[in-house]
Amino acid sequence: MAVRTVEWLDEPVPAVRLLDQTRLPAEEVHLTAADVDTLVDAISRLAVRGAPALGAVGALGVAVALAQGAREGWDDARLRHEITRLREARPTAVNLAWAVDRVLAFLPDGPEAVLAEARRVFDEDEAANRALSAHGADWLLRRCPDRPLRVLTHCNTGTLATTAWGTALGVIRELHARGRIELVHVDETRPLLQGSRLTAWELRADGIDHVVQVDSAAAGAILRGLVDAVVIGADRIAANGDTANKVGSVGLALACADAGIPFVVAAPWSTVDLATPDGAGITIEERAPDEVVAIGGVPVAPAGSRVFNPAFDVTPARLVDAIVTERGVAEPKLRPDMTAVQQPL
Amino acid sequence: MAVRTVEWLDEPVPAVRLLDQTRLPAEEVHLTAADVDTLVDAISRLAVRGAPALGAVGALGVAVALAQGAREGWDDARLRHEITRLREARPTAVNLAWAVDRVLAFLPDGPEAVLAEARRVFDEDEAANRALSAHGADWLLRRCPDRPLRVLTHCNTGTLATTAWGTALGVIRELHARGRIELVHVDETRPLLQGSRLTAWELRADGIDHVVQVDSAAAGAILRGLVDAVVIGADRIAANGDTANKVGSVGLALACADAGIPFVVAAPWSTVDLATPDGAGITIEERAPDEVVAIGGVPVAPAGSRVFNPAFDVTPARLVDAIVTERGVAEPKLRPDMTAVQQPL
Repeated sequence: MAVRTVEWLDEPVPAVRLLDQTRLPAEEVHLTAADVDTLVDAISRLAVRGAPALGAVGALGVAVALAQGAREGWDDARLRHEITRLREARPTAVNLAWAVDRVLAFLPDGPEAVLAEARRVFDEDEAANRALSAHGADWLLRRCPDRPLRVLTHCNTGTLATTAWGTALGVIRELHARGRIELVHVDETRPLLQGSRLTAWELRADGIDHVVQVDSAAAGAILRGLVDAVVIGADRIAANGDTANKVGSVGLALACADAGIPFVVAAPWSTVDLATPDGAGITIEERAPDEVVAIGGVPVAPAGSRVFNPAFDVTPARLVDAIVTERGVAEPKLRPDMTAVQQPL
Repeated sequence: MAVRTVEWLDEPVPAVRLLDQTRLPAEEVHLTAADVDTLVDAISRLAVRGAPALGAVGALGVAVALAQGAREGWDDARLRHEITRLREARPTAVNLAWAVDRVLAFLPDGPEAVLAEARRVFDEDEAANRALSAHGADWLLRRCPDRPLRVLTHCNTGTLATTAWGTALGVIRELHARGRIELVHVDETRPLLQGSRLTAWELRADGIDHVVQVDSAAAGAILRGLVDAVVIGADRIAANGDTANKVGSVGLALACADAGIPFVVAAPWSTVDLATPDGAGITIEERAPDEVVAIGGVPVAPAGSRVFNPAFDVTPARLVDAIVTERGVAEPKLRPDMTAVQQPL
């Protein structure tokens, strides 16, 4: 994928340039955020999304806030307030808060030091994704039949969800590079259709065979033996391996457990939140009704319908076969402890 | 619900009048089918759908075919061919074939006898729905906490899926009439959104509290303890209790089993296919890609994407707590034998 999800711009003022993912696959439109309002809006309406990409935007966003504050003469309280708005623009993905906090530690050293650390956050992401993808492919190839695999994934975890390469989609890319992908089942991922809009777009660009399906088709496909493994990303992983990810993930885990196929979570270590003991401590973002009751502006429910719209769900560690990170692989079903990561053999 | 899903018209020529469900909830438009082509088209594009409603349309449709054949001078081979087209317009719902066969047995007695039997098929449906709804409510109230219940349902199984009252939605209506519904979680039911378009419309008309949610939200809601029971309909039930229903049903059953809450199937006895020993013998209809890759004419996936679009899935008997019919209740999880129905105490 030649596309750049997130880029830093020095000129004319410090800014973050984002590919507006709400417009894909119809249009490739970029937006430039040189102030906190624009960044928070882009994050809130999912113009940029995906836990690792949110980490990069959070890190670079602090540098944007510093530049805006210098231009507009903010005092320290205002600066802290604006950075907190950025940090809390989405509550479930831990990477956003993690990245903001990481670069903020360099504030006493001045804006250049903050930007340098933000660039390190950015640069480390692709390296982490490539390392965790290799671990994930190694782990799956030891567990799965010795033939090209039929892998199911949910939401978008590719280049568009990261700075480059991807997490769960990175594992799939790595398997494809090794000649071990037969077919990818792409859940469309309602309500915002990141699967059919974004993942299908990335797989098409890479020439990886795939089918798009409604989310409800996944459990039946898995129980019918049409799928060898499920690989998904994560927005926050608790210390015991409980995993918050896009709504629908826990249903896939239940189907994998019933069918006896691997359920694998792929995420950089920055997604692991050791301060949260288990999933009960993870805030689940509820989003606006209009995401559900209208699609592309077309109403699909009676006007005024009440809506239940959680953006995420929590998959308990007892249903997770592997969590692959750049540090190695944890196996929560066997041992619910994220610090017990192992390098695959 | 004052609406009539299916009606018989004697004049100006014998015909079936259908509420075009593809236009709901935006518009209440009826269509009149006085020939087999129009009937088959209405069934294929789901202008009329729902296993019991398809039974009524199949039965009355034979009378329409006889009248058309008399007008157009069909020979016996042509008549058989046209009736077979009607009978096979959708392969998964057994009620359609069952009803066609039932009224066809009266062909030797002439068209009046066929129509009279078709009217009996029609009239029996509401009575069956009311009886099975009472059985379902009785069964659930013995198994669930002693307070108003939070029930989740999938697809549409109400008046719009039957001739009147409904099956799974009939059970919910019966619970509501007894003051025992707190909230109904309505799965939107991709790809054709029969939940958000039709079920929400019916519940709103009846003043029953409900929330619309994406299908993927169901498993998480169930595991979080937000749901007391799941009640769905069926398109075909094998002799052992394996149940074919709208795609997504088996995922709900897995979540119920994990959470330890009841998973209940509500269907008239005509949905039970004792000639099919188990789910392996049920044909699963695959439908066209455009249902998935566009919503209301808006493209939601890259042009030319391959699609996997099964309309149904099969829930194994081992995951089904109760199948409620007008003859009584079977409990496949305990005894995988549909002939072992019991009247609830």
